[in-house]
Amino acid sequence: MKFTARQIAEILKGTIEGNENAEVHTVSKIEGGEPGGISFLANPKYTQYIYTTEASIVIVNEDFEATAPIKATLIRVASAENAFAKLLEMYSQIKLAKPGISDQSYVAESASLGENAYVGEFAVIAENAKIGNNVRIYPQAYVGENVVIGDNTTLFAGVKIYSDCQVGKDCIIHSGTVIGSDGFRFALQDGGKKIPQIGNVILGDNVELGSNCSIDRATLGSTILGNGVKLDNLVHIAHNVEIKENSYLAAHNVVAGSTVIGKNCMFSGQVGVIDHLEIADNTILAAQSGVSKSIRKPGSIQMGSPSMDVMKYRKNYIHFRNLESLVARVSELEKKLKELNSSTQT
Amino acid sequence: MKFTARQIAEILKGTIEGNENAEVHTVSKIEGGEPGGISFLANPKYTQYIYTTEASIVIVNEDFEATAPIKATLIRVASAENAFAKLLEMYSQIKLAKPGISDQSYVAESASLGENAYVGEFAVIAENAKIGNNVRIYPQAYVGENVVIGDNTTLFAGVKIYSDCQVGKDCIIHSGTVIGSDGFRFALQDGGKKIPQIGNVILGDNVELGSNCSIDRATLGSTILGNGVKLDNLVHIAHNVEIKENSYLAAHNVVAGSTVIGKNCMFSGQVGVIDHLEIADNTILAAQSGVSKSIRKPGSIQMGSPSMDVMKYRKNYIHFRNLESLVARVSELEKKLKELNSSTQT
Amino acid sequence: MKFTARQIAEILKGTIEGNENAEVHTVSKIEGGEPGGISFLANPKYTQYIYTTEASIVIVNEDFEATAPIKATLIRVASAENAFAKLLEMYSQIKLAKPGISDQSYVAESASLGENAYVGEFAVIAENAKIGNNVRIYPQAYVGENVVIGDNTTLFAGVKIYSDCQVGKDCIIHSGTVIGSDGFRFALQDGGKKIPQIGNVILGDNVELGSNCSIDRATLGSTILGNGVKLDNLVHIAHNVEIKENSYLAAHNVVAGSTVIGKNCMFSGQVGVIDHLEIADNTILAAQSGVSKSIRKPGSIQMGSPSMDVMKYRKNYIHFRNLESLVARVSELEKKLKELNSSTQT
Repeated sequence: MKFTARQIAEILKGTIEGNENAEVHTVSKIEGGEPGGISFLANPKYTQYIYTTEASIVIVNEDFEATAPIKATLIRVASAENAFAKLLEMYSQIKLAKPGISDQSYVAESASLGENAYVGEFAVIAENAKIGNNVRIYPQAYVGENVVIGDNTTLFAGVKIYSDCQVGKDCIIHSGTVIGSDGFRFALQDGGKKIPQIGNVILGDNVELGSNCSIDRATLGSTILGNGVKLDNLVHIAHNVEIKENSYLAAHNVVAGSTVIGKNCMFSGQVGVIDHLEIADNTILAAQSGVSKSIRKPGSIQMGSPSMDVMKYRKNYIHFRNLESLVARVSELEKKLKELNSSTQT
Repeated sequence: MKFTARQIAEILKGTIEGNENAEVHTVSKIEGGEPGGISFLANPKYTQYIYTTEASIVIVNEDFEATAPIKATLIRVASAENAFAKLLEMYSQIKLAKPGISDQSYVAESASLGENAYVGEFAVIAENAKIGNNVRIYPQAYVGENVVIGDNTTLFAGVKIYSDCQVGKDCIIHSGTVIGSDGFRFALQDGGKKIPQIGNVILGDNVELGSNCSIDRATLGSTILGNGVKLDNLVHIAHNVEIKENSYLAAHNVVAGSTVIGKNCMFSGQVGVIDHLEIADNTILAAQSGVSKSIRKPGSIQMGSPSMDVMKYRKNYIHFRNLESLVARVSELEKKLKELNSSTQT
Repeated sequence: MKFTARQIAEILKGTIEGNENAEVHTVSKIEGGEPGGISFLANPKYTQYIYTTEASIVIVNEDFEATAPIKATLIRVASAENAFAKLLEMYSQIKLAKPGISDQSYVAESASLGENAYVGEFAVIAENAKIGNNVRIYPQAYVGENVVIGDNTTLFAGVKIYSDCQVGKDCIIHSGTVIGSDGFRFALQDGGKKIPQIGNVILGDNVELGSNCSIDRATLGSTILGNGVKLDNLVHIAHNVEIKENSYLAAHNVVAGSTVIGKNCMFSGQVGVIDHLEIADNTILAAQSGVSKSIRKPGSIQMGSPSMDVMKYRKNYIHFRNLESLVARVSELEKKLKELNSSTQT
């Protein structure tokens, strides 16, 4: 896809300085840049690069004053930053726009597709699935029986959704992510016999899941990710977990069975939370934290494994780093006390 | 799938109280419940909900005595809990039952399929693969050359099995799991040249693997998971590892090359075990443990990274939590001893 | 595939002792072994097994002297170890050799394929993709729009590469790995609005990625893995990360956004590195390390979470293991000092 400076200026309601026929097909950084790239200048620290950039078009603030010749075509707008963000968003949308239902896909007769759906090659839409409007299902994705998918949702290549699960509107699910695999439950007293997992997974609206995540279905009832929840890559969510609105879990998080995580939480990478806990709203967890007790106080910040208050952990960890010298101090005390003891006893 | 109270009562050999034509199509919790749902009452703590549940049918113990009117149809059985479990299992089996070989799959001429096999859309069964009876291969799964799969095994959508691997009977492999990728071995003294990985993976009977697991093939010989081994999601098993019967590894476990894990072990989430170790039978590992030495004593319970006996870890960790006060105590001792020293020397 | 002793001896330029028509179809260990298997003897510790092995052919050093009858056919070569390695490599190459473009794949008209390409069933090569010579694309793999793949690269079954990414020559990407999913970036001050991720991923030459890895595309610019980089399974590489030549990251590593990792680094399993750090060349990290600060000194070895110098960590951890006794020593000191105090004051 190529765009001219004129087309872009019209979209952004900006004014052109330079060649209005300059064409761009990609986005680039202002430092360096490349012919055919579009960039922007908002942060004054980067002003130096506008005089040397190879980018073909640069979006600048209305009040930008050049102090040397510039090779690139400029587009002046009220806010270069906002205009660029708008442009990126449009560009992403255009890139995702895909037409029609591939002849090489499988859509069950009993499935229903909304308007303007895209179903790529070798994708499967199984019996009774209900797909909303403007949904994009990339190649090799699998939508199981009775699955419901809301409007404007995108499933990238190879996403797998087991039967009976529900995905809300405006969601993005990345490749390799599995929704609705069985919870890890076996009757140990009965020779490890599998406990049937017949619940489902429900994702709210505006949820984004990274690639290669695993979201298990509930044993009974639903595993729930609320509106606006975002997961990074390779995250494990066990059966019957609930994550409330707008919580963010970074890569390699593990949330064990039946735990409930509040709203607006932020967990760094490789965090683990054991089963059947309650984590209060606005909780922040440092990377590699291991949470083994419920966190009742909203806004807590924890670290460590098992986790504790972050300030307490940091202080104790400083002492851990100096444990060897502490041990030496205790040995010295023992020695001195012994000397003192013998001197006073004589 | 819909069932009437009469059909269910026949299966469970129970007696109906209420509308024998009441229909259900799903399973629900007794608290709340929903029309068209079936539930059960076994735990007396939940008795209150039977008077308000919206579920259409509730399975109860023979001796249950109602103390108020109940809207739902009841089915009385010897043990409501066992009857419900039986029903769930049947329901799961019916859901998995799938017919025939899709026209849109690829089955090599040299491959053999047992009786009553299901091969979904866009699945691949490569040359010389041998598939047992009643095997279910969901859409987009890949079964490589010479792979052998035992009777009654299920591969969910998108499972990938590399050439020459073997899967036993009654196994369940969830979506996104990869069996037989190459071990991570390179000749560092030879510029990082790849060491060919020409062994395979052998899974015993009654093995269940969660979604998005990675089980590497052996360099030479076999990576082996014994009968009854269960892995949760996103577990990594390296080349030449052996895991003996009935061991359970929770989500995000990592077992490095050539390590042997005994029978009946239970590892919590995010556990790591380094290479070339031996872990005794019945070992239990707490979440996020890092095992760096062989565990010789059966039934050991360890925690920490590097891991140690769980009681020892817990005690030391309590002291770690109070390290700051310990340091203060040592400083105080130093101060007092100094004072004492000067007073006695005077 | 079957080979006779004569065929193998010709390839290895060795001399046969025994049945030159002995056939093998697999590779086996010398201890045990199996009919139809080929093995080798290089390490004197294993000499005993040559007299009992069931392998049909054993490769031995020219100067090997038997002290008892041997059932297997021998092939004598200058170096049994090197000859066997050469054989394994050839065997691997033959196994990977695959012919042609499947009728059941999808290759966009605008895509270009080099000579001798293999495209398996249900693979997708999207618009404008450029695929080099001798590239093997296994079934169900996905190559997005504008993707470039260099000569001799192998994508195993189900690999997903998002649009605009680039893969070098002689790379191996294992099943389930996703290249180019979106970075985990949201404008928190703007209600968690998605920040468009319009960069790409660039892999150098001779890169190997294990199964089920997730390599996110850059927000702007490129996420870069240099020549010779090797990742084990289930590794997460975030947006805008750069990993320089010949670094090795073991299973379950997590590298957060914009971090730069030097050359020749070796990270053990489950290591995490937070965002925006710089890690010097030749850094070694122990398993489960959590790196929260840049490592500036090349050749550093670190351990712990947060990580520190490995020797320091080990010493402190020994004291941690004995914290309980240290606390007891401090308590004892306090008691003695108190006694002494009262005795001196009286």
